[in-house]
Amino acid sequence: MTEPAPISDAVLAALRGRLGPAQVLTEAEALAPHLVETRGLYRGTACALVRPADTAEVAFTVGTCAAAGVPIVAQGGNTGLVGGGVPRGGIVLSLARLSRIRDLDPVGATLTIEAGAILAEVQAAAAAASLLFPLSLASEGSCSIGGNLATNAGGTAVLAYGNARDLVLGLEVVLADGRIWNGLKGLRKNNAGYDLKHLFVGSEGTLGIITAATLKLFPKPLSRAVGFVGLASPRAALALFETMRRVVGPGLTAFEVMPRFGLDIVLAHMPGAVRPLAAAHDTYALVEFSSPRPGDGMGAALEAALADALAAGIVEDATIGASEAQNAALWALREGLPEAQRHEGASIKHDVSVPLARLPDFLEEAEAACRAAMPGLRPCAFGHFGDGNIHFNLSQPLGMDRAAFLAEWGRFNRIVHDSVARLNGSIAAEHGIGLIKRDALQHYGDPVGLDLMRRLKAALDPANLLNPGKVVSDESRTS
Amino acid sequence: MTEPAPISDAVLAALRGRLGPAQVLTEAEALAPHLVETRGLYRGTACALVRPADTAEVAFTVGTCAAAGVPIVAQGGNTGLVGGGVPRGGIVLSLARLSRIRDLDPVGATLTIEAGAILAEVQAAAAAASLLFPLSLASEGSCSIGGNLATNAGGTAVLAYGNARDLVLGLEVVLADGRIWNGLKGLRKNNAGYDLKHLFVGSEGTLGIITAATLKLFPKPLSRAVGFVGLASPRAALALFETMRRVVGPGLTAFEVMPRFGLDIVLAHMPGAVRPLAAAHDTYALVEFSSPRPGDGMGAALEAALADALAAGIVEDATIGASEAQNAALWALREGLPEAQRHEGASIKHDVSVPLARLPDFLEEAEAACRAAMPGLRPCAFGHFGDGNIHFNLSQPLGMDRAAFLAEWGRFNRIVHDSVARLNGSIAAEHGIGLIKRDALQHYGDPVGLDLMRRLKAALDPANLLNPGKVVSDESRTS
Repeated sequence: MTEPAPISDAVLAALRGRLGPAQVLTEAEALAPHLVETRGLYRGTACALVRPADTAEVAFTVGTCAAAGVPIVAQGGNTGLVGGGVPRGGIVLSLARLSRIRDLDPVGATLTIEAGAILAEVQAAAAAASLLFPLSLASEGSCSIGGNLATNAGGTAVLAYGNARDLVLGLEVVLADGRIWNGLKGLRKNNAGYDLKHLFVGSEGTLGIITAATLKLFPKPLSRAVGFVGLASPRAALALFETMRRVVGPGLTAFEVMPRFGLDIVLAHMPGAVRPLAAAHDTYALVEFSSPRPGDGMGAALEAALADALAAGIVEDATIGASEAQNAALWALREGLPEAQRHEGASIKHDVSVPLARLPDFLEEAEAACRAAMPGLRPCAFGHFGDGNIHFNLSQPLGMDRAAFLAEWGRFNRIVHDSVARLNGSIAAEHGIGLIKRDALQHYGDPVGLDLMRRLKAALDPANLLNPGKVVSDESRTS
Repeated sequence: MTEPAPISDAVLAALRGRLGPAQVLTEAEALAPHLVETRGLYRGTACALVRPADTAEVAFTVGTCAAAGVPIVAQGGNTGLVGGGVPRGGIVLSLARLSRIRDLDPVGATLTIEAGAILAEVQAAAAAASLLFPLSLASEGSCSIGGNLATNAGGTAVLAYGNARDLVLGLEVVLADGRIWNGLKGLRKNNAGYDLKHLFVGSEGTLGIITAATLKLFPKPLSRAVGFVGLASPRAALALFETMRRVVGPGLTAFEVMPRFGLDIVLAHMPGAVRPLAAAHDTYALVEFSSPRPGDGMGAALEAALADALAAGIVEDATIGASEAQNAALWALREGLPEAQRHEGASIKHDVSVPLARLPDFLEEAEAACRAAMPGLRPCAFGHFGDGNIHFNLSQPLGMDRAAFLAEWGRFNRIVHDSVARLNGSIAAEHGIGLIKRDALQHYGDPVGLDLMRRLKAALDPANLLNPGKVVSDESRTS
């Protein structure tokens, strides 16, 4: 590993000259929040925090750093879960000041907005025009749309609307040499050459820095029904999913699953949580139907579908929210799970996907293998079942030393990821690779695919200055 | 331009040794259908037609040609409209024999199928499992799914289901050096590194050769309503589109538009065509509502929506199909238009898109400019209005010499594409770049974006052997 070049006074002076002295910070207290990530798994180092105000200043910053060989990690809300935003020397380039709405086109149903805008602000801008920006995830109050796109974020609305990737029509990107690619088009069809936006979406800041995007908006759902369902097993959940999808097609806008342990800890730790069903069940599903047509009978449709599933023996029990407040309360049970898990000690986490048909096999196989590897372990596999995406989390055995448990992270990763690989799944479904899965990607990835990724990195960032050490790049500069 | 290397006897012998002599053809009559394209605009040259039976044979063919510096153009159904499949020396690699269904997963709703499968066969395979593969276009009886993906085909179902790009979950691709990338995953979420599939989709065979794909399937629509609507202008059509989208959201599965001239020539030339509305109108829209729920009241919903639009003065007249036969007859009026136009002499064609809100401006502006440029010209702008995608076709003036009219192709391209560029549209919406728009792409494309495309081409095909001379590559080999 080559040591990153320390930033020179000349570079700092150039950046301060253009951006203003208040936007180029080197003090430890200014840097501190940008060196760590949500889970506290990594601590990085950086020479400066740089806060450009607009795309031209981002381009100037990148160009200046590129000329001097200074590495750059872009940060939005710094809410990532894989260490992708942790600096490894060089500068942290914050997109926070780029947060303007550039255009909202209600006819084309598009929103052009800068990368630093907070996801909740994006949702609000769409809602103000009576439209929907469907991307929704736990950190939506602090994550930025640029980060969502750079990591191809998922969340709870993927089933009906797709991943972040599917919600973008155009991008503006600052390249590794400081040039600006203007790909901000609000078109549903554009075959004018290679699709460059998909290269940058999900590249975690290693190929370019997204500064603005044109997003797709949708008609707002005006009719919604939410059900909370008790099931005997994940296999029954799969049968229920198939039924619901057949009944309502794109009207099935969420199908989330959690295990009995998950609901138990939410009820134990979440203030005000109320048990939704009389008895306990092995598996719970949260099912949402919605429609842009008011009075579209979503409640009746869900009730009929669940009644049929009860009669067919697929479902053990179910309840449907009788009001929007009840719908929200049912959703809160699912959304409160990650927080509840924090009260149960340390967790070893996985964000994986497998083909839907293999999801019950995966859950049975991986849970059995993990339990066998550590008596008393408490698996808590939950999440976006309808997408084949499970947060396969493992809560530590009661009373076990936290650090001793976390020391087993790699061993459990191997057990779980081996199972995912056997089923032709993905070891990184929605959180990305970052630092935490870089080595696992090398282990499990298709070698030809990995070589292609390295060639793309070399073609777009030959000096390896954009977020070095992440995804498929190593830590060293090549120039 | 470097002259392509003629194929050597040693290369032919190596290919015949592996594929069998019957699959490596050099006779003029075998080559002939592969040297021309649908519209007769180009005639290419090739040394051999090579017909591998499977992916391993494709890889062997590409590896052998790459080692000898022989250019390769991949062909599926050879139905492209932009000269993208026209060989420029070297070999034509036909994917026709790779047509097996590898897997149909009804639970995950995925189909893994080889590139040479005809689109209609893909649709039929999905239908046999009571599922829908929505991609639908005029040449579906002869185009191949590999070609659809290589060109990111569009068609009439994009509004609800997206372009070909949006219908693919995984790919298998033979790279320029003959290696095979196995990216055949049937996952709705996969963030394990850069998204390579989107690089190959739409790259028109210049970055790699798609040999198989895992496709998304959907619940079959079980309830459908089709309306044919008379309108005073494209601006009224836009107002109608907005209303329909608001009313039914993803249930609006088609919104096609044609001008009065278009319906007139369909009625004149299509056997059995019946005028759908009593009077003539400036603009016609074909509107389809569909739902996977049987008895979902799509007919009633469309009737109510059209009645409201009539009352609001958006619509002049409308009819709704009373049966599936009538629905099909209304669709036939739209689908018969390209054929009807052939009876009206030569056409100069454009496949463009603009932001939806600017579509009426574009149509007014471009039609006025074209009419001013040639008295008697008969514009026939029709197509996928709801996608912002118009086939801006120009029928020759009555009685004008065909060749003299076609000699004006470049002049009209410039008029139309200048207008598209002013509105931040795309000069290539769904048909791609190929040969016919290669120079226009250089003229209208963002220079930084074009440079990125050339860098991708150089990174993945450094010797420029895959479909040289198309999209952003020039004709010469660099090795």
